[in-house]
Amino acid sequence: MNISFQQRLQRAWTRTGSLVCVGLDPDIKRIPAELRSGPQPILAFNRRVIDATAQVAAAYKPQFAHYAAVGAEGELAATIDYIRQKAPDAVVILDAKRGDIGSTAEMYAREAFDRYRADCVTVNPYLGGDGILPFVMRPDHGAVVLCRTSNASAGQLQDVDVAGEPLYLAVARRAAAEWNPHGNLLLVVGATYPEELRAILTAVPTIPFLVPGIGEQGGDLAGVLAGGLTADGNGLLISSSRGIIYAGGGEAGAIRAAAEELNRQINGLRAACKK
Amino acid sequence: MNISFQQRLQRAWTRTGSLVCVGLDPDIKRIPAELRSGPQPILAFNRRVIDATAQVAAAYKPQFAHYAAVGAEGELAATIDYIRQKAPDAVVILDAKRGDIGSTAEMYAREAFDRYRADCVTVNPYLGGDGILPFVMRPDHGAVVLCRTSNASAGQLQDVDVAGEPLYLAVARRAAAEWNPHGNLLLVVGATYPEELRAILTAVPTIPFLVPGIGEQGGDLAGVLAGGLTADGNGLLISSSRGIIYAGGGEAGAIRAAAEELNRQINGLRAACKK
Repeated sequence: MNISFQQRLQRAWTRTGSLVCVGLDPDIKRIPAELRSGPQPILAFNRRVIDATAQVAAAYKPQFAHYAAVGAEGELAATIDYIRQKAPDAVVILDAKRGDIGSTAEMYAREAFDRYRADCVTVNPYLGGDGILPFVMRPDHGAVVLCRTSNASAGQLQDVDVAGEPLYLAVARRAAAEWNPHGNLLLVVGATYPEELRAILTAVPTIPFLVPGIGEQGGDLAGVLAGGLTADGNGLLISSSRGIIYAGGGEAGAIRAAAEELNRQINGLRAACKK
Repeated sequence: MNISFQQRLQRAWTRTGSLVCVGLDPDIKRIPAELRSGPQPILAFNRRVIDATAQVAAAYKPQFAHYAAVGAEGELAATIDYIRQKAPDAVVILDAKRGDIGSTAEMYAREAFDRYRADCVTVNPYLGGDGILPFVMRPDHGAVVLCRTSNASAGQLQDVDVAGEPLYLAVARRAAAEWNPHGNLLLVVGATYPEELRAILTAVPTIPFLVPGIGEQGGDLAGVLAGGLTADGNGLLISSSRGIIYAGGGEAGAIRAAAEELNRQINGLRAACKK
């Protein structure tokens, strides 16, 4: 019997003592030259990143476009296999932002969970529950639903006023009430919006968050922790991609140092929040 | 110099005299046995469909999940190459419902336009303009933005009231005003919602529609044409997938007959609308 996704996420937090999610967004132009000229440069670079961060990563988040654009599906699959070997406690989030319905969504679930063996996949809520539920029907896997994203134009749809509250809050409430029958749903809230994070946590206190936007996007780490930590000091996966993987031009020691520094910062703030 | 996407779409309508979009959603379980047991069954089946429909298809729409779930990226690329040979006037829509921002969206544009050589790609608007604009910056390619989808739960987000009108109409207006600088944007409106189609056409009269939901989903063809045709009798791509490709169990003659029958129905109704 597999453990549930919820148990798997709790175990990742407990065993690693970390909230850090390492985003694997390999861009061939930014991969160090000594790897770029060899075979399977994306996989080689990801292995370097995983080796350097396995001790401090509660999760890894490969971003699908970076593999799809260059036909590197095999390297994506091999990357996830490598995470399982080197960081067996870490949760693997396939960041593909799927958004389709019925039998098509089931095909995407097969892709994420059977083909790539990810634990969960990011999903877009614009199609309503039909687009979410196929991804949460297996209790040992999960969905990470976009709620309030970190980009500049996010508010064009997400902030529209719906009966006195912003749409993203309506999405969060509906996610909690209707789209989460197995407790295996997370919400994406950008680190650039700590106040929104606090409002969502108040509205839906039991749903964990994936928080991108730390690092190059300039998110507010202290605000995120103050706004998003649950009573047990977890409830968050804080994702950094380029700020970790391209540290020092993609050199192993610098990658390790960047991931450890982020973990130290988070855990320092976390300890302060607990007091 | 390439022709613009807008010109390419007009040419597809004019030369084929058709509004039919053939959805290529190959499901290995439904592919006829004699192809399923051979090499590259998905490609073999798609070739059969393309051969049978090339005379009446203004567009083809491969649905990405059906390839990604089974690792058939090579067969997807070869399918699009085959469309170019056999139906050179048809527009190719990669139905991948991408929804990401900035450099990641640019990676998805590279995937759709450079790797697969599609003309346009379906895109989700939940992230706002940041998620749309990277797909419309090449005037010889385009984006097809989800507006009012055909599924049962579509209204959970798309129908919420925003200052007196439904969100999907606000999306359509914003698409026309801000997301379409090169005139290469289409909107998705499900065939199950002819009244909504009419409201959107009234609000944004210059944007063409991709209309899925005819066939197995039970859309209303007469309502779609009455609600969505532009003054020149075009403005629509009406998509049918399973209703065509699995006609007669996926036998070539039945596929051809189903596509021709849909085209005949549409053109009969179209002629009636013109009077």
